[in-house]
Amino acid sequence: MKKDSSSTVKVIPLGGLEQIGMNMTAFQYEDSIIVVDCGLSFPSDDMLGIDLVIPDITFLKQNISKVKAFFITHGHEDHIGALPYILKDLNIPIYATKLTMGIIDHKLKEHNLTKSVKRKVIKYGQSVNMGPFRVEFIRTNHSIVDAASLAIFTPAGTIVHTGDFKIDYTPVFGDSVDLQRFGEIGKKGVLALLCDSTNANRPGFTSSERTVGRTFDTIFSEHKSQRIIVATFASNVDRVQQIINTACKCGRKVVVEGRSMVTIIAIAQQLGYINIPDGTLIDIEQLKNYSDEQTVIITTGSQGESMAALSRMASNIHKKVSIKPGDLVIFSSSPIPGNEKAVSKVINDLCVKGAEVIFQDTHVSGHACQEEIKLLYSLLRPKYAIPVHGEYRHRMAQADIAKNLGMPKENIFMINSGDVLELGQEKAGVVNKVQHGGVLVDGLGVGDVGNIVLRDRQNLSQDGIIIVVLTLEKHSNQLLAGPDIVSRGFVYVRESENLMDEANCIVQDAVLDCLDKGVGDWSRIKNVIRDSLGDFLWKKMKRSPMILPIIMEVDL
Amino acid sequence: MKKDSSSTVKVIPLGGLEQIGMNMTAFQYEDSIIVVDCGLSFPSDDMLGIDLVIPDITFLKQNISKVKAFFITHGHEDHIGALPYILKDLNIPIYATKLTMGIIDHKLKEHNLTKSVKRKVIKYGQSVNMGPFRVEFIRTNHSIVDAASLAIFTPAGTIVHTGDFKIDYTPVFGDSVDLQRFGEIGKKGVLALLCDSTNANRPGFTSSERTVGRTFDTIFSEHKSQRIIVATFASNVDRVQQIINTACKCGRKVVVEGRSMVTIIAIAQQLGYINIPDGTLIDIEQLKNYSDEQTVIITTGSQGESMAALSRMASNIHKKVSIKPGDLVIFSSSPIPGNEKAVSKVINDLCVKGAEVIFQDTHVSGHACQEEIKLLYSLLRPKYAIPVHGEYRHRMAQADIAKNLGMPKENIFMINSGDVLELGQEKAGVVNKVQHGGVLVDGLGVGDVGNIVLRDRQNLSQDGIIIVVLTLEKHSNQLLAGPDIVSRGFVYVRESENLMDEANCIVQDAVLDCLDKGVGDWSRIKNVIRDSLGDFLWKKMKRSPMILPIIMEVDL
Repeated sequence: MKKDSSSTVKVIPLGGLEQIGMNMTAFQYEDSIIVVDCGLSFPSDDMLGIDLVIPDITFLKQNISKVKAFFITHGHEDHIGALPYILKDLNIPIYATKLTMGIIDHKLKEHNLTKSVKRKVIKYGQSVNMGPFRVEFIRTNHSIVDAASLAIFTPAGTIVHTGDFKIDYTPVFGDSVDLQRFGEIGKKGVLALLCDSTNANRPGFTSSERTVGRTFDTIFSEHKSQRIIVATFASNVDRVQQIINTACKCGRKVVVEGRSMVTIIAIAQQLGYINIPDGTLIDIEQLKNYSDEQTVIITTGSQGESMAALSRMASNIHKKVSIKPGDLVIFSSSPIPGNEKAVSKVINDLCVKGAEVIFQDTHVSGHACQEEIKLLYSLLRPKYAIPVHGEYRHRMAQADIAKNLGMPKENIFMINSGDVLELGQEKAGVVNKVQHGGVLVDGLGVGDVGNIVLRDRQNLSQDGIIIVVLTLEKHSNQLLAGPDIVSRGFVYVRESENLMDEANCIVQDAVLDCLDKGVGDWSRIKNVIRDSLGDFLWKKMKRSPMILPIIMEVDL
Repeated sequence: MKKDSSSTVKVIPLGGLEQIGMNMTAFQYEDSIIVVDCGLSFPSDDMLGIDLVIPDITFLKQNISKVKAFFITHGHEDHIGALPYILKDLNIPIYATKLTMGIIDHKLKEHNLTKSVKRKVIKYGQSVNMGPFRVEFIRTNHSIVDAASLAIFTPAGTIVHTGDFKIDYTPVFGDSVDLQRFGEIGKKGVLALLCDSTNANRPGFTSSERTVGRTFDTIFSEHKSQRIIVATFASNVDRVQQIINTACKCGRKVVVEGRSMVTIIAIAQQLGYINIPDGTLIDIEQLKNYSDEQTVIITTGSQGESMAALSRMASNIHKKVSIKPGDLVIFSSSPIPGNEKAVSKVINDLCVKGAEVIFQDTHVSGHACQEEIKLLYSLLRPKYAIPVHGEYRHRMAQADIAKNLGMPKENIFMINSGDVLELGQEKAGVVNKVQHGGVLVDGLGVGDVGNIVLRDRQNLSQDGIIIVVLTLEKHSNQLLAGPDIVSRGFVYVRESENLMDEANCIVQDAVLDCLDKGVGDWSRIKNVIRDSLGDFLWKKMKRSPMILPIIMEVDL
């Protein structure tokens, strides 16, 4: 590729910076755009009733003729989860490694999209030419196998996007991250690095996945007579592999439980990413044929998700497995921020049932710590740094690392979603801002719930709703029926009869007063109802339910 | 007190075991009952719109003539917070140490209860005779000064309730826990120990509060030119004392900010529990007269509470203080489980504003770790152990400690709220169960929101509400108006006109069909509306809003 020192390339993050998850970054060179990742976020606590959040792709739709392809770094939800929703608006080819594509295939099948979307599996080291871009997939390590960094070669220079990564010299499956290739690319010159910041405030090195396997060996050998249940992330195929390895050494049969885990393990097995000796896996129905010391259950629910298999076992609503005294439950995970209380609840439920619970030193992170980030910067020596993937403070921690490695402050870009960062050999800076943000998915509806609806849900959730209905005669504005009061989520009506009677009187007086005065404007009548009832309830109870007056009209 | 080896005493926890907070334990000997602590809980995530939760005292009200007094161990909300609510139903005297009573006084003043409630301040070592009980207050250490353990002497034996405690050999204010007295009481024989379990799964000893002071000295000396803001728990007077000590050494003026902290520091100052050199405290208005290196702001908000002072500073809505680049913010706290995400959010907001944030190694716990618990058991050598104060797994960890110290398994009672545990020298066991649980406080309403209302709020918060109103003629059941559809929290109506039109047709058809068939039973008509509209919306959107049909009647 011929380099043009005066040309520039644009980096446009469309999600994932202010809000964790929902990773998506567009790269534009002249009239060509490629997109790296297409993830979803889970709703924050104030997004009541929302199932998930996907990136706003207005910018891509406005430039639909320029958008060439998706390049996916790995198969986690925050990198692939929005694909089925977004492909409906933006049907472009997808490039990914084999396991990543296997997981994407499964998703598209669920959404009936397999036939309409072009996909191509790419091997590590292989490149895809896409207009002015050449995109090379580089082997990395992460908490899911087949993760890739992307080297994006453009006429304006080379950009490396790490995806989510760690440096694991002794991975469970396959080889270690391709440090040589990073060195080679670095030697030729790298314009910019977009690097994972998740653990940028943790000193040292993240431990190898393999260390967890040794921990399993020790724990299993110390609990020979107990049934063992291990909860972990459904997508961590290497972790499941290691549990299976230890189980085999101890002569235990293995049950895999939880829909998402069964799915991913099946895909991994079919594509050759996990090695399960014949006769090891048994069906959950067969558990009863084995004694406790002969079995291991690998399950979902390590984040305390209330409907996941482990939570159901702990609260006795799992159809096939109940926790019993003496069971050993291992959490091979750490709580994702926000899930701490839910995880605690499950641990308590397990303890109440008499289980022994181990939840420390049985997990390693999938993200690079400070020394690994320094190593990557030192191999690549990028001109510009763009810390990505992490809360602001984590990205800031990476910016500090880059600064300490000698990078000039003005070459480090703490950008936000929607920023158009233009990068060239001679200059760099944010030149524009495009539409961005989260689109809320609720049931089958995508984007039909916005701030007004959420604010209403928030209000409804706090003090409920009081509906005031009345019927007026069309021409005379005479009161034919009501006002009647109906409430939901406000107070337990049967025990608050006096209050509701008083409220009824207040509304009645207010309405009759309006009508006596000849007020015929419905919106004024409604306001009077809202104000009089609202004042009364606040004085009486210090509560503010939503008050919804409805007026019906009868033409006699 | 004459001991009667055949007599028994009953221990009846009325809150605080299944649900954290809301600590309250009744002790009954024959016809006399005393109550230790009267705390509140903060609502769990599923208690929508609820402000706080207090213990159900039905049992005490049923035995009102027997209930003699409250004995309070210390001034934290989970031990005193329910007093103003419960004293309205159960006006009995309160006994507590000086600072604890100062905080209670302030609470009662807010609720206009100071005149009606008898209170007596008790010194460490002093006892209160109350019918067959004698209750002695013993000095302990905790994250609030003036904390006490209670030795409850009864004819059936001595029960020790630790309250919340740690063993601090070098406390900031006053003396170390009275280990000698524990030894003396233990030597004479202890029937039962109710001991704090919060840190029972942590090995070792909790560090002295004084270690945090040394950390402040170091941090302050390393950040001489920056403004320093320290967030901590409002009630941790010793922590505030140490921040003030360090500030004085560095010649910095101190601002105390946040309503609850201002209140508690004022009480502590008035009662002599904090020593603030003249000229150290300045009003927040005076901040502008000093340069950054001359000031420290001590503030609430260390738990990320959205309305607390620090959060308001971080999000630029504090009237007097805005965070600026170069500010140093110290979190002298650790997140209470469930608050991790809120704390993270504040840290990110602070980083975005350019502040430096320190949130590690700047806090010590106020609760005893394993070695301290072992020490207390070894001084008291109780016959029975009743682990209290902590999640189930923490109480279980204390039970394991007691077992490892040689206590027979059958003498360790993992009881639940409402259990009536009868203890005697010869036998012990749960003999009864009394009414217990949480009473929800919402605004001024106590107990008028129950499960049905909460379930409605939950439903409303998920998919909103659709109200269907129609007016019928009384005798003919003829449709005079409607059916009209109004929704809140469902979809953004302006963008979903087609959907709402379709929904309207569905309801219209259903109602007319009913009326044509001569169905006059309103509950049947309402069911038909609910079913037809519910089915339609589920098929169309996979959502289940609450559907509320309202029928009005006009007598022409």
